[in-house]
Amino acid sequence: MLIARVIGNVVATHKNQRYEGARVMLCRQITPEGEDMDYTCLALDSVDAGIGDIVIIAQEGWSASTAATGKPGAAIDSAIVGVVDQVDLLA
Amino acid sequence: MLIARVIGNVVATHKNQRYEGARVMLCRQITPEGEDMDYTCLALDSVDAGIGDIVIIAQEGWSASTAATGKPGAAIDSAIVGVVDQVDLLA
Amino acid sequence: MLIARVIGNVVATHKNQRYEGARVMLCRQITPEGEDMDYTCLALDSVDAGIGDIVIIAQEGWSASTAATGKPGAAIDSAIVGVVDQVDLLA
Amino acid sequence: MLIARVIGNVVATHKNQRYEGARVMLCRQITPEGEDMDYTCLALDSVDAGIGDIVIIAQEGWSASTAATGKPGAAIDSAIVGVVDQVDLLA
Amino acid sequence: MLIARVIGNVVATHKNQRYEGARVMLCRQITPEGEDMDYTCLALDSVDAGIGDIVIIAQEGWSASTAATGKPGAAIDSAIVGVVDQVDLLA
Repeated sequence: MLIARVIGNVVATHKNQRYEGARVMLCRQITPEGEDMDYTCLALDSVDAGIGDIVIIAQEGWSASTAATGKPGAAIDSAIVGVVDQVDLLA
Repeated sequence: MLIARVIGNVVATHKNQRYEGARVMLCRQITPEGEDMDYTCLALDSVDAGIGDIVIIAQEGWSASTAATGKPGAAIDSAIVGVVDQVDLLA
Repeated sequence: MLIARVIGNVVATHKNQRYEGARVMLCRQITPEGEDMDYTCLALDSVDAGIGDIVIIAQEGWSASTAATGKPGAAIDSAIVGVVDQVDLLA
Repeated sequence: MLIARVIGNVVATHKNQRYEGARVMLCRQITPEGEDMDYTCLALDSVDAGIGDIVIIAQEGWSASTAATGKPGAAIDSAIVGVVDQVDLLA
Repeated sequence: MLIARVIGNVVATHKNQRYEGARVMLCRQITPEGEDMDYTCLALDSVDAGIGDIVIIAQEGWSASTAATGKPGAAIDSAIVGVVDQVDLLA
């Protein structure tokens, strides 16, 4: 899983039926210290994350779709699975 | 999932039977701001996307093949699962 | 999926039983315009591709092994699933 | 699988139910010689690893979630599956 | 799949039960011409490969764990599935 910041969302009226009602969030990966990285991805929200939140993203189809829809096999490869409160780093 | 622009398609008469009737689209990843990136991939169309469209691509075999053919286990690792109308970015 | 050129093959007499009778092809990824890229991989042939052919490669275990052997769960993560006749690029 | 050092952990009170009770560890990949690499990831602990430990991380949803929770299909793509005692390198 | 050279092994007494009795080999990817690349990974041995051998590595959880243990769903994402005798390259 990776740490990312939610930086936006994507509107797609014409989409696969498994995405109906789902929120597709735009996320940017951050370092453990909280700095922006180049990598961005789209992830379905499964924990009611908001824009600006630091989140945990799981990236694997079976897992992500189970998290986001409660059913496996949806056309999903990334899901937000947690909102980060705190990162504790080895001193 | 990633955001991409459909930039072409591929013709392959000699192919795995699961690809019969499928449209294999050539896509180039773009940044959230809409700029071209280096990464390109082939994705099966599951939402009737056209060349030039901005699309959402899911990349995982189980998910992508379910999206593109309605059945799991096809020889597919990427599918177009939505056409993007709008990207809302955190100000 | 990605576009690649078949540049060779690999002989391995001592191998997992699921590979018996399979042809392990060495492939180099190419750009949509047909230029060589750095990335190379091994892929099982499922469409009788020959050396020099431009091919479509699917890279995911479930999908690739179904394509290459007709059964899921083989120890395969990449399969050649089509021979490319033509790439149409957006002008 | 990759070799990494556990460098911290992440606290997320608001998360997917499959993560309840799980420890989300922050890990940095290291070279076989033990030097830090740029890549970091989050992994669920399945072997009671501690901060500072050198560990083996498996990165695939089906496998990782089985390792970490005893059940497949959890929203997990990385798990710590072993604590490394020793790396033997070809002289 | 990728071509690699076995460069060592990893000892981990404290590990997931699915790894009991398995040999965790340290492998370095090589080019088709046989030169060392930067990428290294850990892979379970399923073909009795030795240190110094040139091998084929499959990297996907379902496939790799079936190859290495005969059962799916082990906490394994990479397995050695063949020992390479010869690489034939397009002249």
